Amino acid sequence: MKYIIVGAVAGGASTAARLRRLDEHAEIIIFEKGEYISFANCGLPYYIGEVIKDRNKLFVQTAAAFNQRFNIDVRVQTEVTAINPSAKTITAIKQATGEVYEETYDKLILSPGAEPVRPPLPGINSEGIFTLRNVRDTDYIKSYVQQKHVTKAVIIGAGFIGLEMAENFHDLGLDVTVIEMIDQVMAPVDYPVASFVQQHIRSKKVHLRLNTAVTGFTKTGDKIEVALNNGEVLLADVVLLSIGVRPDTRLAAMAGLKLGQAKGIWVNEFLQTSDPDIYAVGDAIEFENPVTHQSMITYLAGPANKQGRICADNVVLGNTRSYKGSINTAIVKVFDMTVGTTGTASKHLTAAGIEHIVSTTHNGSHAGYYPGAKQMTIQIAFTPKDGRLLSAQIAGYDGVDKRLDVFASYIKQGKSVYDLIEFEHAYAPPYSSAKDPVNMAGFVAENILLDRLRVFYWNEIEQLKPGDLLIDVRRLDEYEAGNIPGAINIPVDDLRNRLHEIPKEKRIYIYCEAGLRGYLAQRILRQNGFNKVANLSGGYILWKACTT
Amino acid sequence: MKYIIVGAVAGGASTAARLRRLDEHAEIIIFEKGEYISFANCGLPYYIGEVIKDRNKLFVQTAAAFNQRFNIDVRVQTEVTAINPSAKTITAIKQATGEVYEETYDKLILSPGAEPVRPPLPGINSEGIFTLRNVRDTDYIKSYVQQKHVTKAVIIGAGFIGLEMAENFHDLGLDVTVIEMIDQVMAPVDYPVASFVQQHIRSKKVHLRLNTAVTGFTKTGDKIEVALNNGEVLLADVVLLSIGVRPDTRLAAMAGLKLGQAKGIWVNEFLQTSDPDIYAVGDAIEFENPVTHQSMITYLAGPANKQGRICADNVVLGNTRSYKGSINTAIVKVFDMTVGTTGTASKHLTAAGIEHIVSTTHNGSHAGYYPGAKQMTIQIAFTPKDGRLLSAQIAGYDGVDKRLDVFASYIKQGKSVYDLIEFEHAYAPPYSSAKDPVNMAGFVAENILLDRLRVFYWNEIEQLKPGDLLIDVRRLDEYEAGNIPGAINIPVDDLRNRLHEIPKEKRIYIYCEAGLRGYLAQRILRQNGFNKVANLSGGYILWKACTT
Ligand SMILES: Cc1cc2nc3c(=O)[nH]c(=O)nc-3n(C[C@H](O)[C@H](O)[C@H](O)COP(=O)(O)OP(=O)(O)OC[C@H]3O[C@@H](n4cnc5c(N)ncnc54)[C@H](O)[C@@H]3O)c2cc1C
Ligand SMILES: Cc1cc2nc3c(=O)[nH]c(=O)nc-3n(C[C@H](O)[C@H](O)[C@H](O)COP(=O)(O)OP(=O)(O)OC[C@H]3O[C@@H](n4cnc5c(N)ncnc54)[C@H](O)[C@@H]3O)c2cc1C
Ligand SMILES: CC(C)(COP(=O)(O)OP(=O)(O)OC[C@H]1O[C@@H](n2cnc3c(N)ncnc32)[C@H](O)[C@@H]1OP(=O)(O)O)[C@@H](O)C(=O)NCCC(=O)NCCS
Ligand SMILES: CC(C)(COP(=O)(O)OP(=O)(O)OC[C@H]1O[C@@H](n2cnc3c(N)ncnc32)[C@H](O)[C@@H]1OP(=O)(O)O)[C@@H](O)C(=O)NCCC(=O)NCCS
Repeated sequence: MKYIIVGAVAGGASTAARLRRLDEHAEIIIFEKGEYISFANCGLPYYIGEVIKDRNKLFVQTAAAFNQRFNIDVRVQTEVTAINPSAKTITAIKQATGEVYEETYDKLILSPGAEPVRPPLPGINSEGIFTLRNVRDTDYIKSYVQQKHVTKAVIIGAGFIGLEMAENFHDLGLDVTVIEMIDQVMAPVDYPVASFVQQHIRSKKVHLRLNTAVTGFTKTGDKIEVALNNGEVLLADVVLLSIGVRPDTRLAAMAGLKLGQAKGIWVNEFLQTSDPDIYAVGDAIEFENPVTHQSMITYLAGPANKQGRICADNVVLGNTRSYKGSINTAIVKVFDMTVGTTGTASKHLTAAGIEHIVSTTHNGSHAGYYPGAKQMTIQIAFTPKDGRLLSAQIAGYDGVDKRLDVFASYIKQGKSVYDLIEFEHAYAPPYSSAKDPVNMAGFVAENILLDRLRVFYWNEIEQLKPGDLLIDVRRLDEYEAGNIPGAINIPVDDLRNRLHEIPKEKRIYIYCEAGLRGYLAQRILRQNGFNKVANLSGGYILWKACTT
Repeated sequence: MKYIIVGAVAGGASTAARLRRLDEHAEIIIFEKGEYISFANCGLPYYIGEVIKDRNKLFVQTAAAFNQRFNIDVRVQTEVTAINPSAKTITAIKQATGEVYEETYDKLILSPGAEPVRPPLPGINSEGIFTLRNVRDTDYIKSYVQQKHVTKAVIIGAGFIGLEMAENFHDLGLDVTVIEMIDQVMAPVDYPVASFVQQHIRSKKVHLRLNTAVTGFTKTGDKIEVALNNGEVLLADVVLLSIGVRPDTRLAAMAGLKLGQAKGIWVNEFLQTSDPDIYAVGDAIEFENPVTHQSMITYLAGPANKQGRICADNVVLGNTRSYKGSINTAIVKVFDMTVGTTGTASKHLTAAGIEHIVSTTHNGSHAGYYPGAKQMTIQIAFTPKDGRLLSAQIAGYDGVDKRLDVFASYIKQGKSVYDLIEFEHAYAPPYSSAKDPVNMAGFVAENILLDRLRVFYWNEIEQLKPGDLLIDVRRLDEYEAGNIPGAINIPVDDLRNRLHEIPKEKRIYIYCEAGLRGYLAQRILRQNGFNKVANLSGGYILWKACTT
């Protein structure tokens, strides 16, 4: 058997290694147009920021070592330029010599990845404007920053890579501005969760320009003028474009392979393209999302690696192993914060017409009595009918990755908020509380589903009618330190004695700091004949983050 | 309705709070024989060790605040001494006055907890010998240590609380000896996992005496002589007994409630005792373990809290909510290490006659190229037939709690090692690798189940026959730095060229550092006609930890 693989990083190298383990005697050739294989894409921002100091650490494998260990013919700096599916050949060009040649294959695996988007803006190709995908880009950026004594960076696009680069540039001592077209950072998360991140970024003195688009660039001397759609012009020494990526489908399209609705390479559940002898994995493919059932492209290293393993199995053993799709579990460190998401954000559920309920809770990363606990905010979405979990998003400072992983395991398995209640976590004071934040999210969601808790949302406050009652049930000192305009204060612990102050026929909107005391207040009120009571999901904390 | 609760800490206070939320108008009385309610049992060792500096932090609720918030009649320092189930009354004694009185109930909930075991050893009641359960014990120990200028502590029992106390005494500057009757610390985990902890404890200059029993105590002046079964006598200023706890079933037994096989209070799935008007939760009950199906007592705060919520629902709403049992997920910080377990250890599976396979893997807590990654050891057990996950145990320095929680979610849901493979974790370099340690454990287990990987275990090395071949497939420098006696060295990367050196008919035992290269070597060998090949599960790392 002869296997050819195009692309030798996350998906490609993983496929190759597994192919060899399954089939010691096959001929395996892997093509990589870049200089390096198996590099740590995800580590590149941290190498630029000198968190990773040793450049060699970026290489999980080298061509020589990979060949030695796996007996794989690794051909770097060699681009595959065409596929001839009927002849079962590929055409390759050796960059160093310009030599063009063909190779036959029995099975071909494509893992060409995705390319950074470079919109056709005036001046976009000026010196000093970079995208970041591979080691070469990294070397360019790093040496440019060092040699040009760069002090001002503009980052365009506040996605995961943009924010990582904002932190890393900032840590190098640069003055950093992040420009983002939409009204929030991190498009895959919902606005309330993003709002915590925005506060944090700003607290680090990074300039964040939301709702702002770049219209063009002008190079003047060593500086780049970055023109904005509001007429303003920013001066930068270096610009990073991180406005997204798109699947590299050129080879596939040229070969007549089917592309899907999302413009990625179409594959079936076995990761097989429309040509049965060609498989594809990684950032270039699209696949049905298990939550929305829409075809989607996933730009994540975990799925790419795991697809590689599945793909190799199917190539060697026949189509025996199904890929189940990715729920897009993603995480990013943003300075001291960690933010992540798993499943599908509320706004995207809405866009997909999927009915859902959102609930926000705040909890300590571990027991409050043990030093160092930090608050995290968890927003989940679930179906109204059966409580099936559709997404979880978390922003916080510690233990965020843990809870995301737990939610991911539940979402992946199609589980419901009722299952969260039964989650039996590992508890000792340094790690959690007797009820984990995951349990808490489950409790609250269950209460909502069973109508023990009625909620309203931060953006509904504006819509309260005259005559509606907004009650802050926190302590007086908390109320006095800041409250939602229009609220009166009745601390929950006084509520039973002050019921007579509240007119029964009014619509009552309650809030507290995080949501818990508001829930208690609601229990008291509703069992005392007040029927139109709702509690602010996520409490004052969330309202404050969303409105400042 | 009138509800009475006995015991006002984890299980009792949780039940009381939820009862009030469900039933605003019930009369609720909670009895607590101690001075405090709702205290952080789990924080007590850390208050002694001055990690928690403010004593008030130990009180999650006070009697007054609990009464104020929940309108619950909290009666501290009042012991319930008898239950009369037919009359539906309890008898209570007010400690301050000696007043004895009765209260009627509609429903009674017992959450009396468990008591530290105090074996009838000579001298056990000497001054300076303590157990640790509540705030009073804590205050006693703390003031004793301070006032007596204690320098030497002996801890008897190397369970979770014993190890927490070893760390906390050590951090106070005491010279600490831990004495343990069996051959390992932390009885709920298997020996290999415990062996990592033992190394770590010893590296902290804590004296660890395994396989050692205490035979008695003699008080001489301010010192306590601790006599050991080997004839030795240790001198201590303070002794902590932490050899286990037993359920406090006195009240229940006296009232004729059914006790179970494990000597806890018997309850049905609704947490109802043999008397339909009496429910029980927490450390005092026993329940079917979902993994072994044996009736067991769980001494953990998470389950106690969650049972409280379930119990309250059943009390107020009728028996509507089932408890599903605990998989005994537990964790402990031991100096810089974290160790934990979920599900049932291999040795206990064996004792219960449950067929299973064990697999050990070692992985970085996050991507190796990002600074600060620390290795963790994961041991899982699963059924040979369908790969159902029976337990996971982890020892490491970072990210251990995260992986335990993920395993716990899979075990709780009856999932298999195949599900671990599909686990879609949140990956960015500071948090994990593209394949999480949980995925890795799944890959390896799958390979074992599908006979792609044959393993042998560290304790089988002794049983190798003359003529068997033990091959170390690490690099020469690794081999030379230390190897298993009798092993020859053929680095995996040379193996393909040196196959002719290996006799085909021999039984071949391979090992590498962690297991991965041994697996690769095995793939090469088996696909080259070597059929009797096995790979050391957990590799040299595990063998070394277990044998030193
Ligand atoms: C800066 C950065 C940070 C990231 N951080 C994270 C993170 O924290 N977490 C996460 O999950 N994901 C992260 N990602 C995404 C992750 O790296 C990708 O999802 C993953 O690498 C995709 O794997 P792939 O094999 O599809 O593509 P790639 O890993 O990009 O590999 C594709 C390779 O194919 C080669 N190639 C393409 N066409 C040809 C051809 N015709 N001939 C020969 N070779 C060809 C390319 O040169 C490339 O090297 C990050 C990506 C970047 C760029
Ligand atoms: C030092 C220590 C550290 C721990 N660390 C952890 C940990 O890290 N993680 C973890 O999960 N678990 C830990 N635990 C265990 C956890 O605290 C218990 O599992 C949990 O508290 C059990 O709850 P419970 O309600 O059954 O019993 P308890 O919380 O012990 O409450 C029972 C209460 O009932 C009272 N009582 C008993 N009989 C009567 C009576 N007749 N009348 C009136 N009152 C009565 C007792 O005084 C007691 O206060 C720890 C325990 C201790 C002691
Ligand atoms: C380096 C690379 C080629 C590795 O491929 P790989 O060999 O499949 O992956 P690993 O080295 O992690 O090894 C995993 C294999 O070892 C096995 N293994 C791991 N630990 C083991 C142990 N203790 N005992 C036995 N086997 C073990 C696993 O079962 C798995 O084998 P399988 O797939 O046949 O089941 C590929 O992942 C790569 O190029 N990575 C860098 C690029 C990248 O991913 N970038 C994005 C993230 S920054
Ligand atoms: C303090 C104690 C009485 C708390 O009981 P509790 O009120 O049930 O627990 P919490 O304060 O955590 O609140 C949980 C409740 O608030 C609700 N809640 C939490 N966050 C919320 C939010 N943001 N919005 C709405 N409701 C929220 C939960 O749904 C849950 O209510 P439910 O059970 O009716 O669904 C009890 O846990 C205790 O005594 N603990 C200390 C002792 C102990 O556990 N020791 C062992 C560990 S050290």
